[in-house]
Amino acid sequence: MRDGIVTTNGLDEAVDLATSALFGGLEDPAAESMNFLNEVASRHPHAIALAAGRPTEEFFDLADVHRYLRSFCDHLAGRLGQSPAQVRRTVLQYGRTKGIIHDLVAEHLRIDEGIDVDPESVVVTAGCQEAMFLVLRALRADHRDVLLAVTPTYVGLTGAARLADLPVLPVRTGAAGVDLADLAAVAEQARADGLRPRACYVMPDFANPSGLSMDVATRGRLLEVAAEQELLLLEDNPYGLFHGESGRLPTLKSLDERRRVVYLGSFAKSVLPGARVGYVVADQRVAGADGRVGLFADELSKIKSMVTVNTSPIAQAVVGGKLVEHGGSLAAATARERRWYAGNLRRAVDALAEHLTDVPGVSWTVPSGGFFVVVSVPFPVDDDLLERSARDHGVLWTPMGHFYDGMPAVPALRLSVSSVSADLIDTGVRRLAVLIEEQCRQRTGQVCR
Amino acid sequence: MRDGIVTTNGLDEAVDLATSALFGGLEDPAAESMNFLNEVASRHPHAIALAAGRPTEEFFDLADVHRYLRSFCDHLAGRLGQSPAQVRRTVLQYGRTKGIIHDLVAEHLRIDEGIDVDPESVVVTAGCQEAMFLVLRALRADHRDVLLAVTPTYVGLTGAARLADLPVLPVRTGAAGVDLADLAAVAEQARADGLRPRACYVMPDFANPSGLSMDVATRGRLLEVAAEQELLLLEDNPYGLFHGESGRLPTLKSLDERRRVVYLGSFAKSVLPGARVGYVVADQRVAGADGRVGLFADELSKIKSMVTVNTSPIAQAVVGGKLVEHGGSLAAATARERRWYAGNLRRAVDALAEHLTDVPGVSWTVPSGGFFVVVSVPFPVDDDLLERSARDHGVLWTPMGHFYDGMPAVPALRLSVSSVSADLIDTGVRRLAVLIEEQCRQRTGQVCR
Repeated sequence: MRDGIVTTNGLDEAVDLATSALFGGLEDPAAESMNFLNEVASRHPHAIALAAGRPTEEFFDLADVHRYLRSFCDHLAGRLGQSPAQVRRTVLQYGRTKGIIHDLVAEHLRIDEGIDVDPESVVVTAGCQEAMFLVLRALRADHRDVLLAVTPTYVGLTGAARLADLPVLPVRTGAAGVDLADLAAVAEQARADGLRPRACYVMPDFANPSGLSMDVATRGRLLEVAAEQELLLLEDNPYGLFHGESGRLPTLKSLDERRRVVYLGSFAKSVLPGARVGYVVADQRVAGADGRVGLFADELSKIKSMVTVNTSPIAQAVVGGKLVEHGGSLAAATARERRWYAGNLRRAVDALAEHLTDVPGVSWTVPSGGFFVVVSVPFPVDDDLLERSARDHGVLWTPMGHFYDGMPAVPALRLSVSSVSADLIDTGVRRLAVLIEEQCRQRTGQVCR
Repeated sequence: MRDGIVTTNGLDEAVDLATSALFGGLEDPAAESMNFLNEVASRHPHAIALAAGRPTEEFFDLADVHRYLRSFCDHLAGRLGQSPAQVRRTVLQYGRTKGIIHDLVAEHLRIDEGIDVDPESVVVTAGCQEAMFLVLRALRADHRDVLLAVTPTYVGLTGAARLADLPVLPVRTGAAGVDLADLAAVAEQARADGLRPRACYVMPDFANPSGLSMDVATRGRLLEVAAEQELLLLEDNPYGLFHGESGRLPTLKSLDERRRVVYLGSFAKSVLPGARVGYVVADQRVAGADGRVGLFADELSKIKSMVTVNTSPIAQAVVGGKLVEHGGSLAAATARERRWYAGNLRRAVDALAEHLTDVPGVSWTVPSGGFFVVVSVPFPVDDDLLERSARDHGVLWTPMGHFYDGMPAVPALRLSVSSVSADLIDTGVRRLAVLIEEQCRQRTGQVCR
């Protein structure tokens, strides 16, 4: 056997490759994390799924897809004056790497998010995941580059960073959604270690997994700290539209006067996951070796041409059609969804209060929006416990360890309330309470012995 | 200014980043290549485009997209017995990372390509470009890993390899489509240099850009050399369906008895570019650190989950619908396109013979299928000449240097016959002949002086 390809290994001639000679990240816990969670769910199809952060299917309608497509084509023909041949070309041919709905995305950002940017600084991507990967790959110039991330953090961010060979340094969440002193300390320590901290990944609204949001003062100070530390901020905002009665806070990008924020957007929850359309706003000015100054978006576009060439214009047309039908505003277009998620969140918190108030050492967050509630418990939570919960109690959730690098057994779990009905949430939380009380009893028993 | 972010540079405070602190590949000629070609084309919209390898729009029809979507949903409901709620979920929700049309892809491969594989070894991707990136990223374990590629080669391959930090060692094309002695020599030299050659990228049918195809004997010997050299073969086959009257040769993968071939597929030309759906067949067996053996496809799937999560199921449904409507066979479904491309190819070769037969030092390939003809000329061909051709002669083509690393001024150019009518090909070649004769005259004149 030469390095790289196994030809004969004595025991098993039917092996062609070894993971030891493949991308190292394939053996990371993060790469296994999603697979494991999906696999548990598939083995227990009747367990109540408070695990996946997927949107509700309550309002899915195939007829919408056909209508959105038509609406977008009408928009191309009407507002943009394209001939039938041009419309066909726009939607069915290879196309602009940065996308064909950039103007509609910019309009939506202006109306719904208070973000006013040149459509040229928008890159439409194959889901927000690709947007993350493009930004991280662009920022990885050499081995000194590192990313900061408010942790616990989204597993997709950790995966994309690993794929881009960009180490992630955790920053504490704290009570405000980001611990600013820790952020500054981590950046300074990194520089003292000869590293080059490039950016900090944050989710200011209803973060995954913490459910926490940053208040306006924290957002302002975060922008100041980022400027002091010469960091970009990667603002990911998949849940912002799904606020509760308290309403919206301004996005970081809308407060960003110095082009410090790269904004990551998703249409998976506001339109359809099946379109796989996201985007990044990258209005930073980049100086080339030849002195010419261009947009960061155009550098990301070059990388995108090597990853996916361009985002399916058919999929973009579906999203574009919904934007067109609602005059660019998804806030208005997602009123039903907003009520659904807010109602589910309330129901989860009520059920937790009903079933777990008197259990010592158990507490939970009360988010003002989004999909997630975090339950803290007085015992470590790992994959074995999840397996037991699915099998013996019929309820699925996510161990919080999955949102930390190295997957430690953190004493907390994440509930997602987005994809099941309020009644099932009630039943699910009741089942979870039985598991938690059982664990607390066992633990007390062990302590007594 | 700290490393990485320019805050004040004395001259221009409006600069936020420098390319010197971004991904190095952004300053590669390859990254600029596509941009430059698109940009020339956009500045000369009336020039005859014998440049882009995009498919003809002659048969594009928006109504097809709607019908394909419905056909695929009917297939889910009928053949797979899904309920309306399940159909909606399959097409509109997040889904299986490896795709939802893997069984249809496997059926198509069996019928049209003589390739018999488990659908589980298929990963459906956001265009074939993503498939390339996934494979290259997987094979890049450390700095020793290198890729071989029959050169001149597709620019997207070079870009994906750069993005994966995988150096590309060129292998000569020769007269047979691959110079097997050179292939062995390059692999052996690489190993002697302490490198780890992992795979060789090949396009056995109507290659881009050379237009050459490998005969059956060469395919067989290529598989032997790959086994001897312990290389995987990355077989890219976007043009195989578009053969001329001579018919098809067996794909490498159909001849592959030892799982040596990773097969890269595209639906951009056989269905629609606007779907952006491709795939990779990776049936290699991979041994993990724990001794478990899995499919290479499942390792690629883990990487895909970090790049795009999953390929738009709406886009997959469009492709799936066409497959369903034609019983899995795209050979039958693309008869019109095949006639169109074969007719255009004939017309291009006839026009070249008519206008350039008597010009000394000028020759061209006569491919048996595909989109491309290469014209060799007795002078270097660079971007300036292309610019002149577009401006003064109204015809666009691609300098062959774009298909070599470092973009040397090679004395040849590529004509693409796929996206214009036969009459325009005639006119385009006539215009090109004027340019070539002019260059030959100038050159002779210079020599005389």
